[in-house]
Amino acid sequence: MIEPRTLKGFRDYPPALMIPRERVLQTAREVYRSFGFAPIDTPALEYAEVLLGKGGEESDRLVYRFKDHGDRDVALRFDLTVPFARFAAQAIPQLGTPFKRYAMGPVWRGENTAAGRYREFWQCDFDTIGTLSNSADVEVVLVIHELFSKLGFDGFTIRVNNRLILNGVLASLGIVDKSVPVLRTLDKLLKIGREKVIDEMTREAGVTVEQAAAVLTLAESEGTNSDKLGHVERLFGSEPQVVQGIKRLRELLAVADVVGVPEARIRLDLSIARGLDYYTGTIYETFLDVLPGIGSVCSGGRYDNLAGLYTKQILPGVGASLGVDRLLTAMEELKHPWLAGVSTPAEVLVLQLPEVPAGYAQRIAALVRAAGINVEVYPEAAKLGKQFQYAEKRGHAVAVIAGSQEVEACKANIKDLKARTETTAALAELGDAVHRILRAP
Amino acid sequence: MIEPRTLKGFRDYPPALMIPRERVLQTAREVYRSFGFAPIDTPALEYAEVLLGKGGEESDRLVYRFKDHGDRDVALRFDLTVPFARFAAQAIPQLGTPFKRYAMGPVWRGENTAAGRYREFWQCDFDTIGTLSNSADVEVVLVIHELFSKLGFDGFTIRVNNRLILNGVLASLGIVDKSVPVLRTLDKLLKIGREKVIDEMTREAGVTVEQAAAVLTLAESEGTNSDKLGHVERLFGSEPQVVQGIKRLRELLAVADVVGVPEARIRLDLSIARGLDYYTGTIYETFLDVLPGIGSVCSGGRYDNLAGLYTKQILPGVGASLGVDRLLTAMEELKHPWLAGVSTPAEVLVLQLPEVPAGYAQRIAALVRAAGINVEVYPEAAKLGKQFQYAEKRGHAVAVIAGSQEVEACKANIKDLKARTETTAALAELGDAVHRILRAP
Repeated sequence: MIEPRTLKGFRDYPPALMIPRERVLQTAREVYRSFGFAPIDTPALEYAEVLLGKGGEESDRLVYRFKDHGDRDVALRFDLTVPFARFAAQAIPQLGTPFKRYAMGPVWRGENTAAGRYREFWQCDFDTIGTLSNSADVEVVLVIHELFSKLGFDGFTIRVNNRLILNGVLASLGIVDKSVPVLRTLDKLLKIGREKVIDEMTREAGVTVEQAAAVLTLAESEGTNSDKLGHVERLFGSEPQVVQGIKRLRELLAVADVVGVPEARIRLDLSIARGLDYYTGTIYETFLDVLPGIGSVCSGGRYDNLAGLYTKQILPGVGASLGVDRLLTAMEELKHPWLAGVSTPAEVLVLQLPEVPAGYAQRIAALVRAAGINVEVYPEAAKLGKQFQYAEKRGHAVAVIAGSQEVEACKANIKDLKARTETTAALAELGDAVHRILRAP
Repeated sequence: MIEPRTLKGFRDYPPALMIPRERVLQTAREVYRSFGFAPIDTPALEYAEVLLGKGGEESDRLVYRFKDHGDRDVALRFDLTVPFARFAAQAIPQLGTPFKRYAMGPVWRGENTAAGRYREFWQCDFDTIGTLSNSADVEVVLVIHELFSKLGFDGFTIRVNNRLILNGVLASLGIVDKSVPVLRTLDKLLKIGREKVIDEMTREAGVTVEQAAAVLTLAESEGTNSDKLGHVERLFGSEPQVVQGIKRLRELLAVADVVGVPEARIRLDLSIARGLDYYTGTIYETFLDVLPGIGSVCSGGRYDNLAGLYTKQILPGVGASLGVDRLLTAMEELKHPWLAGVSTPAEVLVLQLPEVPAGYAQRIAALVRAAGINVEVYPEAAKLGKQFQYAEKRGHAVAVIAGSQEVEACKANIKDLKARTETTAALAELGDAVHRILRAP
């Protein structure tokens, strides 16, 4: 006999976890689609060369890479961005630009497994490529806002920034060449605090204490979003990049306001850089207000060129990615109503009785189903207690039973399993009667 | 620069193919759920030992297998059944039986790639385990019928059989020990014809010509489903397994009739065995009437024990699997309306004009979206001709435009891109106006 087990860092999704995951993915799908993003999919397995490019050792270490049957050097995708870049290089000549896509699927990284970190996890990305227009940047905020509203969160904050401001400030301080270590250190501000950031910046990036302090003024500008932009404009407004960054952020805030995004949902944070050297314009992070510690659950930004590794065509773009597994962990912690422990998608269970002709239960179920309700038939005429226990364990809301008397009268009994009440309905009215119970407050 | 390419046998899904694939998967999800099957997911990557068991050489050859970073012997799943068996062995003690699950996802096989055969392809399975009840067998037919009806096919046939009949017939002929090669050859009847089947059975299975001919009477029984059962009952009705198989099939046909499945949809085919030694009871295959040549697009059956490799708990079950990629290939060939070449999920495109304030287009879009319509904003105030070309290429049905005059009057112009007509609506009525166009015949 073989021991049934999963690999370290991998996990099963039983129904009680998979039902909410499907709901999260379906919500994201509907929101992305409602803004005109079209789905694409790419293979899980690709040429290692395609996924890793010239490949740093770091990425090599975490990638699942092997030789296939044809001795090809292949690897499992570690994100959805690199395959999208490869796809774009091949397909954009036919598809044209602008091109808006979303993609959802598992990715694999052989990283150390910490709490809530898996080696297989789902990403859920959306991007608009082939345009420099700020209109696409603005839309990312609208999509994130719609998404988290539809996911049933009422306390979340979208933090935005624009790398042009950071770059302009570094230029005005004469430390553009040190931007990578400076911004990497700046990103640690929340974690390690002001003093240690200044210390690390001077040490690691080789800037002066004054330069470090000037960079930190960005993080320390306070007040409303508009106050912050005014503050940085007064200090660095002679720098063209800063001017451009401020202009784009002001438009973003204005449009979000016109469309009805509450002001408190968007918070300018002029210090976020999102480590990656990849982002060049607007930057987005999304935090759950009561769980800031889990980090951003939806992040992204604008980049200058998506697919430079594979094509000469310049493809600027902007997008973001929903961290599905991190979000599910947060929803569990927050006792989100979508994770109420229900492990069946069926609201209704039809019970079977031995004296009733085969097929009657399925006929009842078909009637309820035709009313748009998910309904399961218990597969055996087991003892009623056992069938009710099953309904309790799975979380069905309603049970429907018909004994020979009811069959003769073309009726069925309906039990509200939450309220523990019972009623009888003619078969022709069964769907309506169940709807009434399910809709009851 | 790196050449952008996919591996042989792997493919991208651009929007025009991915939109129908999502629709197929969503339809399957809704149908499975409507019968109370609950979703589960298992990892793509597992211990090779778990996936391959004692592993024949044949399966070894086609499985993507390698050593991970921790020197573990791992492999990519080649179906969804083996991981389900492993999952069941671990989870059923907590989840209890009966347990109804569906699973959807890619699987990988390093096979030779023929037309329409890929090394990565999607499966879409549903099963009820933990019960011997024929009620679960009957339901499989109801699910397949509902699924293909919802997929928009009107010409399909579900072929059913029961291995008990085949086994009983072989027993009565005294050739039970030769059942594997006999049934494997029998499955080729449609492909190679009667003479060659008899020839191969005598040669490969070592049965007599008379025995082979007797087995073939099963395949050759004609008339209605009821006629066929009567025929086999007369010939082999003294064999207990045959009696049991006939009883279960008769109930299946009766319940399907009660629930309203048209008689022509189900066709008894007493010869199908589905090669696999795995199946022990009811067997299902689904054919598209106008494309029988592509083979079964949804197949399955009853098995005696799902997870014997991993647990002592006996888990009988019954289920079937939708071949998503084969179905998509068929839909392409049949010019199914879901593959009409539309490459956007948005019905509506909002155009941008340079003289209109930023945000107005997004405001219009938000109004249309609030009416439940998917709507995209062209990201730039490009020339109108270019924006209309984009709508044409992507397949939007409606364009909405507001110039400064309309903005002032709180109105927008609506163009029906199919009928090439135009109307104007106040912003408050925009959603209704667009709905009217989209709903027009």
